Amino acid sequence: MVTPEYLHFSNSPDQTIRKIIDSLSPDKVAMLVDENTKEYCLPLLSTSEALVVEIKSGEQNKNLTTCETIWEQMTQFGMSRKSLLINLGGGVIGDMGGFAASIFKRGIRFVNMPTTLLSMVDASIGGKLGIDFNGLKNHIGLFANPEAVIVSPDFLKTLPKRQLHSGFAEVLKHALISDADYWNDLRHLTFENVGWNELIKTSITIKSRVVSEDPHENGSRKILNFGHSFGHAIETHFLAGSEPLLHGEAIAIGMLLEAHISVQKEWLDERQLDEIQTVLKQNFLFPELPALEYLLPWMKQDKKNQRDALNFSLIKEIGECAYDVEVSSLNLTEALEYYTKIR
Amino acid sequence: MVTPEYLHFSNSPDQTIRKIIDSLSPDKVAMLVDENTKEYCLPLLSTSEALVVEIKSGEQNKNLTTCETIWEQMTQFGMSRKSLLINLGGGVIGDMGGFAASIFKRGIRFVNMPTTLLSMVDASIGGKLGIDFNGLKNHIGLFANPEAVIVSPDFLKTLPKRQLHSGFAEVLKHALISDADYWNDLRHLTFENVGWNELIKTSITIKSRVVSEDPHENGSRKILNFGHSFGHAIETHFLAGSEPLLHGEAIAIGMLLEAHISVQKEWLDERQLDEIQTVLKQNFLFPELPALEYLLPWMKQDKKNQRDALNFSLIKEIGECAYDVEVSSLNLTEALEYYTKIR
Repeated sequence: MVTPEYLHFSNSPDQTIRKIIDSLSPDKVAMLVDENTKEYCLPLLSTSEALVVEIKSGEQNKNLTTCETIWEQMTQFGMSRKSLLINLGGGVIGDMGGFAASIFKRGIRFVNMPTTLLSMVDASIGGKLGIDFNGLKNHIGLFANPEAVIVSPDFLKTLPKRQLHSGFAEVLKHALISDADYWNDLRHLTFENVGWNELIKTSITIKSRVVSEDPHENGSRKILNFGHSFGHAIETHFLAGSEPLLHGEAIAIGMLLEAHISVQKEWLDERQLDEIQTVLKQNFLFPELPALEYLLPWMKQDKKNQRDALNFSLIKEIGECAYDVEVSSLNLTEALEYYTKIR
Repeated sequence: MVTPEYLHFSNSPDQTIRKIIDSLSPDKVAMLVDENTKEYCLPLLSTSEALVVEIKSGEQNKNLTTCETIWEQMTQFGMSRKSLLINLGGGVIGDMGGFAASIFKRGIRFVNMPTTLLSMVDASIGGKLGIDFNGLKNHIGLFANPEAVIVSPDFLKTLPKRQLHSGFAEVLKHALISDADYWNDLRHLTFENVGWNELIKTSITIKSRVVSEDPHENGSRKILNFGHSFGHAIETHFLAGSEPLLHGEAIAIGMLLEAHISVQKEWLDERQLDEIQTVLKQNFLFPELPALEYLLPWMKQDKKNQRDALNFSLIKEIGECAYDVEVSSLNLTEALEYYTKIR
């Protein structure tokens, strides 16, 4: 299996993190948590020597202000370049904690302990770190790898169902962009009898392979952004409202809209689109979306764009994805019309 | 001569930057300036297509708030990952602009056009980027190299004498830590008849050699921090007051204090210390310093420290420097007493 060296699957996360701390021999350790992982995950660990830095959960707190409070506490605790930050949480904790560590005193080491399905299969692999800025997703960030990622499906037992579904969106994406057989397995899966260990390993293997071929996203890595051009804009839009969507919920809507553009381009046929729609509807709610004019400004800030044109990653068929596909306003409008009809 | 590939010496900076822009082929270009380089240096260039981002000069503005205004303007201008930022200015512009570029959309390219002696011989080589945080120098930052550095001694004609002396402190440091012959040349030099081109090349060569042997400062690169343990604390202290010191002015004081610790350790003799003192006094004013208790908290935050001990880089003799030397409170007190006596 092709997975990064720093990845550790473990059914005893406490033992594994202790071993890793011993081998890294940091002078001080801090652990980044939110109110949820502090209550449900931290008690499973015995890292009592660590400074616990608590932040508020949620994408709306993934910003510079939160980073400043993290840096202030790390500074007061006397952390040096030989210190270690452990990120215990989901994508927000991993993205922001890794970012905060990577530029604290020009970079200290960090370890990720993902506690959500989303962060296990997605955020913890690939080295993308960052925060939102002025409402733009991951607008400020960098690429850097953790010393270790400890994947422990045990943590999933602490996870609300809605969070589990959100992570499942990225699992479905991995299948749609690169593995038709995996897609067929996932279509018939129910959460009651799923083998999380196997599923997580398969998804991580897919993502790792894609990332290793293009670590800094100059080309082929962009296929991982399928569903994310619409998805990020939708996520950003709802972030400003009273009922934010989870990342995977927004990506699920994005995948459906972008699959429709593939139909417009005569890559997918209607039958395949129906199949995708059915699986997504089993797992996600489809809220009313705003008009295109409210989404477009966010889409124009997408990091994959070049020279002011919109570039999407679109599936050519189930299990295969193209990138740098120029998309017109008409494509977007038609996709939104389709969504309004079927939701 | 061992200098980085990205270094361009040029007597026609406008022509050189045009060539570099052509070869990098960015979709958009922004140029970071302060009120001084906007008035004196920008008119020498014909990069009229570039967005001019102006910030206030001075170390006190090298912070997150200024970065946010830079990112806002870059975002509004529609800059993408294919865009380019040109940093036209001294150390503050280069450090902060490079940092801002390196984490904008997970990193865009940047070019440095140093306009001060200090930034030509020091800040533009070595990849150290960053900003101050809560009064701590370069507390947030990273290592990254520019696409190009254009060194054009022509810009020095626009520079106030005080700025020239500040840069000269780092030149003297290069001699003291690694080249006794260079030191002897510099001792007898007057600013009226100095050949800047040769001097800048010599200093860059020294710094480049040191950096290339240890890019991320795990060991030997630390010798470049001679004078900086005391120097940074002194700079930080005066930054909060009404009469801030320039970086080189603080480093000059730091070098004298740290040279005295070398005498305490019986590495330097009194005669060599006198010689250093004489040269520094020719170039710098020595203000009254605060008591050690006001400097110590800043020194404890030094990125070179490990496990709560103070580690200095100290010259063993003129032209040779040791690093990771543990220093006691008594060493510091005696150095400050010496300074009070001779200043």
